[in-house]
This record gives sequence, structure tokens and C-alpha cells, in this order.
Amino acid sequence: MVLDEATCWARLVAARHAVLATIHPDRGVDVVPVVHAVVDRRIIVPVDTVKAKRTTRLRRLANVAADSRCALLVDGWDEDWARLWWVRVHATAVEVAPGPVVLAALADRFPAYAAAGDVATTLELTPTRLTGWAAGGPAGYS
Amino acid sequence: MVLDEATCWARLVAARHAVLATIHPDRGVDVVPVVHAVVDRRIIVPVDTVKAKRTTRLRRLANVAADSRCALLVDGWDEDWARLWWVRVHATAVEVAPGPVVLAALADRFPAYAAAGDVATTLELTPTRLTGWAAGGPAGYS
Repeated sequence: MVLDEATCWARLVAARHAVLATIHPDRGVDVVPVVHAVVDRRIIVPVDTVKAKRTTRLRRLANVAADSRCALLVDGWDEDWARLWWVRVHATAVEVAPGPVVLAALADRFPAYAAAGDVATTLELTPTRLTGWAAGGPAGYS
Repeated sequence: MVLDEATCWARLVAARHAVLATIHPDRGVDVVPVVHAVVDRRIIVPVDTVKAKRTTRLRRLANVAADSRCALLVDGWDEDWARLWWVRVHATAVEVAPGPVVLAALADRFPAYAAAGDVATTLELTPTRLTGWAAGGPAGYS
């Protein structure tokens, strides 16, 4: 079953966890789990100082600086395959220093981001294509 | 905390659900949820006739036929970020008609694949690079 645009956005907004795929110049693709928030139909992916990492200059930032095309996936896994669903956004991504609205949106969703400085930078995704699917209908997996 | 190779493989083998990123000639990347089985350190991603879809000639098959580089991610989401982890495999993928060993491995993991003909074809991923991370250690997010 193909999901309509409103349903896709509702599931994107609600999802607690996503996966971001970017283009790597040699390896072709990179894929990494992320958290996100939706602000005015842009998808904000924070690079934080909370989860352990060697550096906040993550590979994904270099990847989108070289090629801004990316894709973000949220999905619901269930051992009962009649309950599977996913929503995918193709987008262009740009690194943006987070302003107060974005910081508030992130902190509202994720208490770990409540302290100033917890978000080093962000990727801001502007969707170019939105696709969603849920099991139980006639077709749609692409 | 960087996960060692044995731990990465153990988590890959155990994971019930993964995400596959492939290279799309125009959109740059595609990303889709998949199931998988590990057979002799190859990762088998079935294209099935069980979950609803318009066709079994999925976009991912065309993508890897044009550029075999891909990446597969398994990860553990938890609201407690001290429990986050992920394992990523960069690989080359090729479409392979499933033989009896692969069909048995898939059916053993996923009862939905018990009937003959439930797996139309497979992507067989040969890993080129294995990376894993878990929260709680000093560093490692890349």
C-alpha cells in the first residue's frame, strides 16, 4: 500500500530513529543511524556532542559537502510482516549551524539535547521526493 | 566503542532487520529496509514474493547491476543512548538465483519463506569493509 504524503509526513515527524544514506566518493554509499526533528518540512539531523565519537567533523558532513544528495529512511519492523511500513525521503542536505528554533525542536524531542552546546552542528535536509509503503495493501514496494 | 570483527559478525548474524543502501544513477542513493541471512560470510538479501510489491524486479537490483557497491546497516535503537549500537558492512552485491543452502538458511530464519517460490531472487553481498560501534566506550562514531 502506497502511503499518501500526509501519512508519510506524520510518520516522519513521529519516528524516533532514522537511517541516513549519503554518497561516499570511494565507497559509493555510507549509511548511519541518526535522530532527527522536522521543522517546517525540513528534516534536521543533529551532529551532537552527547553520543561518544572521535570528532564532530563526521564523514557524513564531508559526504554532503561533496554531493548534497542523500536519503533518509524511517521504518517499522515487526515480526508480523503484515505490520511492516517505511517512509523514505530523498533530499538535498546542507550543513547549517543550528538556530534557536531548531535547537528547541531537538531538545523538545530528545532530553539529552537540553544543555547548550550539545548540538555541534546540523544537516538540514530539503526533501525532493517522498515515498512511503505499508504492508497489507495491494502493492507498492519499490 | 569500536566493535571488533567477531562482535560485528555476531550482531550481523543475529539481527532480524537491516537497511540496504545502494547507488541510484540519478537520485544518488537509495535506502530500503530488508531482511537478510548470513551464509559463509556472505550476506543474503532476498527479494521475496511474500511482502506486497508491484514487481520483483526491484530498483535495488537495477542499482547494483549498474554499480555493485552497497552498504548494509543493522542497529539497535534505544531511548537510553548508552545502549545504542550499530554495525555497517560495505560490500559488493550481485544478483544470484538462490540455491538450496541459501533457501534453507532464509526459511530457517523467516517462517514466511517456508514455501517454495517465496524467494524470487537474492542479492549476495560480499563484504569489503566492516565497521561497528556501541555507546558507552571512549570513541568510535564515524
